[in-house]
Amino acid sequence: MSGMAAFIAPLWNASKVQTGASHNLLYRCERPSRGRVAKGTGRVPTTMVFSDAGVVTDEVFSAKGMSVEQFFERSLGEWRSQRSSHNLAWTQFEQVTSEIVIRKLENTDDEVAKLCQANGVDEADIMMSVKMSWEGESDWDEETSEGESVLCVIKDGARHGRLLRSIGYAETIPAVGNWEMTEDGVFVLDTTYDAAAAEERIWFATPDLRLRVSQIRTSSGRGVMTASLSSEVRRLNVN
Amino acid sequence: MSGMAAFIAPLWNASKVQTGASHNLLYRCERPSRGRVAKGTGRVPTTMVFSDAGVVTDEVFSAKGMSVEQFFERSLGEWRSQRSSHNLAWTQFEQVTSEIVIRKLENTDDEVAKLCQANGVDEADIMMSVKMSWEGESDWDEETSEGESVLCVIKDGARHGRLLRSIGYAETIPAVGNWEMTEDGVFVLDTTYDAAAAEERIWFATPDLRLRVSQIRTSSGRGVMTASLSSEVRRLNVN
Repeated sequence: MSGMAAFIAPLWNASKVQTGASHNLLYRCERPSRGRVAKGTGRVPTTMVFSDAGVVTDEVFSAKGMSVEQFFERSLGEWRSQRSSHNLAWTQFEQVTSEIVIRKLENTDDEVAKLCQANGVDEADIMMSVKMSWEGESDWDEETSEGESVLCVIKDGARHGRLLRSIGYAETIPAVGNWEMTEDGVFVLDTTYDAAAAEERIWFATPDLRLRVSQIRTSSGRGVMTASLSSEVRRLNVN
Repeated sequence: MSGMAAFIAPLWNASKVQTGASHNLLYRCERPSRGRVAKGTGRVPTTMVFSDAGVVTDEVFSAKGMSVEQFFERSLGEWRSQRSSHNLAWTQFEQVTSEIVIRKLENTDDEVAKLCQANGVDEADIMMSVKMSWEGESDWDEETSEGESVLCVIKDGARHGRLLRSIGYAETIPAVGNWEMTEDGVFVLDTTYDAAAAEERIWFATPDLRLRVSQIRTSSGRGVMTASLSSEVRRLNVN
């Protein structure tokens, strides 16, 4: 049976995963479908290691109780992203693969100062700043897309605050969003733009896998136009 | 710019959404991409109405504080589902569209009695039972897939409990999962199978849009093999 929604259905049924040398991980999938079995074997790129390899204890990772500081510290690094977007009116899909780099900026950085000034915010109020750059390909586009954005995190309380961005999500203009860290360890970000509003829910499934669900809403916030999922796998340097 | 991950990027930029007669909803998208604009206009099927049409107040819907009873009551009905699945080792995508029907079963129903008996559970302990049936198409399969499953919800506390299923998610065998309703209104379901474990997070983005994020993990729970998103839009009967 193939990938049915709602509690059920094995989309992929990985029957054997050999996790010997982490940089030589062999991955085999069997996907049963009405009597047939679609099989495949793949070798994971040497620059990518799955979380199993990076975890040394027997404990299962949980994001519960994660602080916003931990969330952003963990977000630093290089990521390979798979993104699927659903256009809900048209029942259409978009697929994007991209490379993302997130690095820390000092509060003394010119770009941080500029973003603070534009928003009338004192640099001393910034908890942390990062710069994100990305490069990727969509199945809707022939060309590669790339860009970057500066993000400044302001804490207005232990688990909520604001996020300044030099480029927004739903529209390519500067934006200020409101964030909250839920007790479950999910970073929830709400941003209202001129013609739309975005809600993003981002959390760590493992230390090296970040999931992000985004919704683009009408500006009233009542209707949802698109929903999307990004699976971001950390790139580790393996010698 | 196309759909980049991480806080950024308009995948779809719906510039005009006419919401006149709900059954004649006109939907227009403009998708800017490096100077080009991909345009499209679509007519929403008459059997489907977006949440804007079903909402009569000006309040923005929030699932915060939703009880498990409310969650399952709201889940009853007919749904059109778009599902995307990410194979994280192979960077592969699967797309599935399906029709889902969820209807209530009485505790006196034979199928409920059978499932309770198989799990050694007293029918009096069942909070609610539902039957899900689905039919759908994957871009990996030529044939249509269909099936059904009986679900019985047991409350072990105000916000946590167990879920009995006649067919599981990651493997097509009966399964018992542990659920929790977060304060944020997310139904989180963990199920351990023989060769894998599944975590599902399901919540209502609007009264008529249910989002579901699923992860299939290795049985140790430490590695994630696939992540997927289902966007489920309620089918309303419009005269």
